[in-house]
Amino acid sequence: MNIEKTIKCAYDESINNARFGDKFEEIEAIQSTIKSAKSVVVATRNEKKFKVVSDIISKITDADISMIEIPTNSADLTRMPALNKGLIAVDSSNADIVVSRGRLGIPGSGSLLIILDKKGRILTGSVSPSSIIHKNPIEKTVELELINALERIGIMVKK
Amino acid sequence: MNIEKTIKCAYDESINNARFGDKFEEIEAIQSTIKSAKSVVVATRNEKKFKVVSDIISKITDADISMIEIPTNSADLTRMPALNKGLIAVDSSNADIVVSRGRLGIPGSGSLLIILDKKGRILTGSVSPSSIIHKNPIEKTVELELINALERIGIMVKK
Repeated sequence: MNIEKTIKCAYDESINNARFGDKFEEIEAIQSTIKSAKSVVVATRNEKKFKVVSDIISKITDADISMIEIPTNSADLTRMPALNKGLIAVDSSNADIVVSRGRLGIPGSGSLLIILDKKGRILTGSVSPSSIIHKNPIEKTVELELINALERIGIMVKK
Repeated sequence: MNIEKTIKCAYDESINNARFGDKFEEIEAIQSTIKSAKSVVVATRNEKKFKVVSDIISKITDADISMIEIPTNSADLTRMPALNKGLIAVDSSNADIVVSRGRLGIPGSGSLLIILDKKGRILTGSVSPSSIIHKNPIEKTVELELINALERIGIMVKK
């Protein structure tokens, strides 16, 4: 099943009070959307963060992986910086998949990494503690976030 | 500092390219907003999930904790069910704080738990794997999500 079909089924179930959690075919549709991507844009202009994401994504796809071409600071003045950064990438590129990372909510709320499809729909995501709390180097944090976001939908990454 | 002030400062820093991650006073403003809440609404109609959330929140606040009074199924037909469920609670109650849990994104994308303030701003959050992947009992999953959401902004919960 493709994503439009799994969404239509799930919405039907919700309307009819017959929805009982995620289904195998839904996870499968998400996995196949990510793995079959031909073009991935990473919504960052930071070379170090880009390299970490690119190294992991290249293990699970044959996609061409590139950095977003315009600055995304404006997203930091919105209620959901990580999401809005990702949508800037979706709307300004032809990416099949966008990987975006930024603040979850207000300043202090820590980071959110999300993977969006070409329509801007959220396929998976993960959070890290506020940088004040964890103190890990940024590369390690981004690596763990991306691996976690993939693993929670059943894509295991070889290390 | 209150939240409006920490947001104003952080937005100023972002505009001027002088933002270098979360600050102590931002975390502190979030902690104090949560701890000083007088009324908390949990955006669920499930007694089991409500009890888990209520037990944890009552350890860190003196708030009156109640269940949302209207069904939230409609949020499951949106792009961010957990967020929209929370906003239904913010908009239909006088809660100082809302705890909301639901799907992160599309069907299959697993769950997101978020804590919102009375304006609907996101204070913290956490994710779990898709239920197909983890197989934990729902009470345990909700408990871990809420503890994780609180710990990542430095609120440690006594077990």
